[in-house]
Order: sequence, then structure tokens, then C-alpha cells
Amino acid sequence: MVNKLIYLDNNATTKVDERVLEAMLPYFKEEYANPSSMYDFAKKSSTAIKQARSVIKDFVNANDEKEILFTSCGSESANTAIRGVLNYNKTKKHIITTSVEHPCVLNVYKSLEKQGYKVDYIGVNSNGELNLEELESKIDEDTALVSVMWANNETGVINPIEKISQIIKSKNKDTKFYVDAVQAAGKIPIDVQAAGVDLLGISGHKFHAPKGVGALYVNSKTMITPLIIGGHQERGKRAGTENVPYIVGIAKAAELAADGLKYELTEVKRLRDKLEKGIVNKIYNARLNTGAANRVPNTTNIGFEYIEGELILLHLSDLGICASSGSACTSGSLEPSHVLRAMNVPFTAIHGSIRWSLSRFTTEDEVDYVIEKLPSIIEKVTSISPYQKELEELKRLRGTANDV
Amino acid sequence: MVNKLIYLDNNATTKVDERVLEAMLPYFKEEYANPSSMYDFAKKSSTAIKQARSVIKDFVNANDEKEILFTSCGSESANTAIRGVLNYNKTKKHIITTSVEHPCVLNVYKSLEKQGYKVDYIGVNSNGELNLEELESKIDEDTALVSVMWANNETGVINPIEKISQIIKSKNKDTKFYVDAVQAAGKIPIDVQAAGVDLLGISGHKFHAPKGVGALYVNSKTMITPLIIGGHQERGKRAGTENVPYIVGIAKAAELAADGLKYELTEVKRLRDKLEKGIVNKIYNARLNTGAANRVPNTTNIGFEYIEGELILLHLSDLGICASSGSACTSGSLEPSHVLRAMNVPFTAIHGSIRWSLSRFTTEDEVDYVIEKLPSIIEKVTSISPYQKELEELKRLRGTANDV
Repeated sequence: MVNKLIYLDNNATTKVDERVLEAMLPYFKEEYANPSSMYDFAKKSSTAIKQARSVIKDFVNANDEKEILFTSCGSESANTAIRGVLNYNKTKKHIITTSVEHPCVLNVYKSLEKQGYKVDYIGVNSNGELNLEELESKIDEDTALVSVMWANNETGVINPIEKISQIIKSKNKDTKFYVDAVQAAGKIPIDVQAAGVDLLGISGHKFHAPKGVGALYVNSKTMITPLIIGGHQERGKRAGTENVPYIVGIAKAAELAADGLKYELTEVKRLRDKLEKGIVNKIYNARLNTGAANRVPNTTNIGFEYIEGELILLHLSDLGICASSGSACTSGSLEPSHVLRAMNVPFTAIHGSIRWSLSRFTTEDEVDYVIEKLPSIIEKVTSISPYQKELEELKRLRGTANDV
Repeated sequence: MVNKLIYLDNNATTKVDERVLEAMLPYFKEEYANPSSMYDFAKKSSTAIKQARSVIKDFVNANDEKEILFTSCGSESANTAIRGVLNYNKTKKHIITTSVEHPCVLNVYKSLEKQGYKVDYIGVNSNGELNLEELESKIDEDTALVSVMWANNETGVINPIEKISQIIKSKNKDTKFYVDAVQAAGKIPIDVQAAGVDLLGISGHKFHAPKGVGALYVNSKTMITPLIIGGHQERGKRAGTENVPYIVGIAKAAELAADGLKYELTEVKRLRDKLEKGIVNKIYNARLNTGAANRVPNTTNIGFEYIEGELILLHLSDLGICASSGSACTSGSLEPSHVLRAMNVPFTAIHGSIRWSLSRFTTEDEVDYVIEKLPSIIEKVTSISPYQKELEELKRLRGTANDV
């Protein structure tokens, strides 16, 4: 193990930006009042929340601050949105989502299925792109809710949210549309009004705020019941004393992400592309799992054929390089990724698929280091693969490397 | 307004202890890995959670670390416990709580009542002590759950949890017992095994951890469904990437609270008693609302007869003194406290009732300052009361002050 850390797992979580920590510190130290308290001392806490709400409103381009709730994480945002909409109006019993959603949506849908909801899971093609015709065909008068992620956590593939909203609303204007934007926020522009979204969830720790804070946009025409019932906080839609430091933190992180969006879309993308090309060009049994799909600028998912991803990660970890197979939220499971399975990634590549996710803190040196070190790791792991015959054939077909 | 801050509202929230902040900082800075990740870099995060779980296990004297879940607040703990137990086993439809619970329990019960549950709300006497005979008489074969707070947030009155558990289990051994210990933790010893509790919730920010983290004890014989569904975190009982810094923080705060318990039970109590006697002895229209009830050492609730609490708080706030009427979680509401109403505090005193809640950071000088300044504030507010005739009569009856 080396001391150097090369963190290429920013879709799992991110480093807290020092400016975010700076912004939070006063609310741990001097300004610790409960924002619901009536005395002067509480004014700074309550004002801080008000300002943070305004920042998040702008970050997703909501129409009104009242449309923004603070939550404890992306999973809470998704649970609140989906179950809140369905609980508020229980007449319709059909709901739709995709087969590549994050577990915080997929497992809620599975539990709703057990409760008697009819659920359609829309599939994706081999690049991970959603089947919009299938989606359109499934929406009917009884469809209460459609839930589609803005960008996939494992592949980075972006769904055309505005187009999807148009499809939904043209088939049934009363169907509500929840968008899990956890992997999109901070990486591409989010505009809930332009995209025609009814509810949208984000998570702070995916864009350099701490783990343990999220936000939920609920447009003023959409009613939900609260998930956490209790005090009057968040206008009765989320009980619990407000986490003032983290609310200040997610707002600061959103400001920084908005300021850094151009850098994300150019420089982070350039480094991601360099890493991706470097790997796929140098390694003959590497395979870009998403083909030509439109993706967020920081993510690439590459399959290494006929070898085990866990073994690759172990060798990477020895060099201080952090990447992942599947997502952290499903790690520990021996099942291959449900996302890659939905894409029909060949079984020869699915077990050896690695997600690399960069951030604004990723440097060119780090990318170069991975490009330099990875080939020998893959060669070592490949040399002990039981599929030597197939590998020989692949080598013959592709030459020593791919051409992307 | 003065610069000095005298914070006597520690039941609303507390200052983060500097040692808690110190313990959390590395997990904002260097150790930011997602604890579910498989690489070496994530080991410190996952180990930190493991250690924190062990600390909380000891803090409440659970039998096993697996019985401890981390949540985002006391309200989430209560919602998870109550709805989780009832959702796991839906056969029984009778539930019991008290009329003086926190809104995070009471409002969950009200929502369950709307869903068809039969609910009994057990009353209290004029000191705020629970009617145990009434409780006993209500438990039957159909009783799924009893929820009783360990200590009341507004009055500090302690419920005899062990005795209550015995009553419950002797009437129906299958009835589950949830205890909201948010206002007890850090103030009196908590022992879930000795007390015979099935589920117990605590909140970090009531004992000098930050706002936004709680814990829930669920004994190994008690099954719950998760409130937040998604990833595999917290053994499938609470999805969402773990809030590593705050989990470390609540554990550190619990350690400090355990170490400081003797100080709480002696010094904090001494200062609370001094404040209480100082006020009630010097002010003839002051009334200790809890009489001789057994209370946590830091809280006193005093009614000032024939005057408005909000006006008193305004004057206190001008001197930098923070106290509260009702609880922060119900502030903004013009209704008098549901707790004091349940106690039948006379209407002449209920509107002028103030909660004073101390902490280990409260100094003798601060207490002396309040005792010095309060009488003239009360005199000023009393002088403009429309109840001058009644006040004259009270003065005549009590002399210039009470004798406690």
C-alpha cells in the first residue's frame, strides 16, 4: 500500500470541500440555536436555513423557496417523494420506474409492488439508454407516478428528462414525475421548470457537501404526505430539528458546484475521456460498457473481459487507487450489478466491470498514473483467468488494443 | 441586547461540545470514504462506525451492537420504531401512548388513528405524572405497542419506565414497548435491559452532538420494517450513505455524557434547584408546574400567573437569556402547550409558563444573573396585566413570595 490516494470513486461519495467545512463551522460552534426558537439568538440559525433554501431553489431553478425541503440523504428524498405522492392520493395503483434505478427507488417500488401496486420496470438498451417507446406504451389513466433517474450512478448515462416529461404529460397530465438527480446535480445543469419535473431529489455528499444531507424539490402543484411525522419543521413536510450546519453546507456546495459546472463539463470531461481512451486503447480486453450514450462528464464504466473486478480493485487499492465495481450501496452483494445486467452486458465482461468517477479534485497526474499502472494489473489478473482460449481469440480480433 | 449569552434552553438543543467537533473533523477532511466501499481507504470510515455503534450500545446498555441503528434525528427514530413495529406485524390494531408525548410520537399516533388504529392516550396528574392504573386498564390482547417517553421535554418529569414495562408485559407479553429517551439520555442513566424496553430512541443534539443524528435501539427479539428503504446500510433497516462524521460525533457525545452523568445529577441539579428556588421564592406569582414530581436534573417549568410567556421571553432575550415557552418543535403555534394542558395547569398560569433547561456548560454566575434580573422583568410584565385584582388577591394569599 502507498501513501498516495487516487480517489476515482466520486459517484460513491466525495470529499467535503474545505470551503463547505468553513461555512459549516460557525453553526457547530457559536450559532448552535434551534432555528425554531423565538429568541434573538436563534435568528442566525433560521436565517441561515432561509438563505440555504434560496440557494437550492436557484440550484435546481425552482419557482419558489417553499418548493425545497431539506432531508437527511438522497434515499430519504426518494422515499419521501415516491411514498409521499402515493400516500397523499391513493386512488391510482399503477406506477412506473426503470430497471436501472438506484436501490432507494427500486426497493421502494418493490415494497409498493408487495402492497398491491402494479409496477412496470422500463428497460434500457445495451448502452444503458432508456426505452422511451416502452415507457410511452405503459402510461395510462391509472398511472400515478413515474420515477426516472436523471443520470445513472454506475454508468453515468443521462436520461432525456425533458423529453420523458413530455411523453408522460402528453399521455396523462395527472401522472406525477419524480426524478432522482443524485448523480446529475453538480455534473450537468438541473432545471426543474424547463425539464417539467414534479419532484426531484439530490444528495449533498455527491457534490462535496457531507454525507447526511439531501434536498427534495416538490413543485407547488404536487401534494405529498410527510415521511417523518412530528414537529412543524419544513412546513410540516419533514419533522426533526433542522441540521443547520449541513443545510448551510449543502447550500455552499451547491453554489460551488454551480460555479464549477463549466469546469466539470470541460476539464473533468477531458480527464475522464483521457482516462477512458487511455485504458481502452492500451488494454485489448477492455470494453466501454456505455458505447456512445450521452453521459455525465465524470463517469466511465469499463468492462475487463474474462476477469474478476474484485481482484482488479484489490490490486488498485494496493496502489491507493479507489474505484468500484457496482455501487457502494449494493457492495457486499455477490450478484453482478443490476444496471449492467439490464444493459445485457455480456457475462464475460459484467464481472470485470469497473466504474471510474472523477471530480474537480482529480488531477491529470492521477489520471496518467492510472493509465500507466492499470495495464500491468490487468495483464496479471488476465494471466490467471481460466478463459485463456477465449482471450487469445479476443486478442486476435481486436489486435493488442481497441481503437476508440 | 447584550453580547453575553445565557443559554437555558438545552432541552431545545445544545451546543456541540468542542471535543465532539474535534472527533468529527477528520471524517470531514481526510477520511471521507463511503464506509460501504471495499478498498483500504474505506476501512477507517467503516471502523469508525463500528466503534461508534459499540459506544452507543454501552451508552444504553444494549446486549448487542446489532441492536443499534443510526438515524438522522429523534423524530426519525420514533417514526422508524412505531411505524416499523406496526408495519412488520399488522394483525393487532390497538396502540397506546401518553397525552404528553413529543409531537414526533403524538402526531404519528394521530396519523395511525386516521389509518384505523384504535388509540388510547393515557393522561397525567397535575404534576405531570403518568396515570399507571389507566395504562394498565387499557392494555389487552389486541395491544400491539405502547409508547411512553422516558422524560418529558417541557417539564422534565421522569416516567418510571421499568415499572411501566412490568405493567405492560404482565398484561400482554407480546405488546412492544417504545421509549422516547430523547430528553433522558445524558441526564439520567439509561439501561434498556434493566428497564425492559423493546425499542428506544435518542437524539444527539440534546447531549452536545450536532443536530441531525439520532440512534435507535431495537432489541433482537423485535422486528421492524425500515422507514427509509434503499441500500443495505444499517443491516437493511435504514438506507442512505452513513453520516460518518455525525455518527462519530454522537458516540463521542455519548461517551462524554456517560462520563459527566455524576456532574449532571449533582452540580447541574444543584444549579437548577438554585434557579428554581431563586425564582419561586422571589416572585409571588411564580408557580412550579411539576410540584414534587421526579424530574431530570436540568429542567424546571415555572408558570408566571396572569401574564404572557411570550412577553417574558422577549424581555429575557433582550438580556441575552434564552429560555422557552412550550417546545421549539411546537413554537410558532399560538396554542398553549399540550403538556401543560394535559396536566390541567390553571389557565391563569399556562400562558405564562417558561421552561428553563440547563446543561453542564451552565455556570453559577449565569444562574445568579437570571435570579437577579428576572424579578424586575416579571414585575414589569405583571404591572400591565389586565388581572390586577386577581394578582392583588394572590399577593395577599402568598405574601411577597412563595416558600419552597
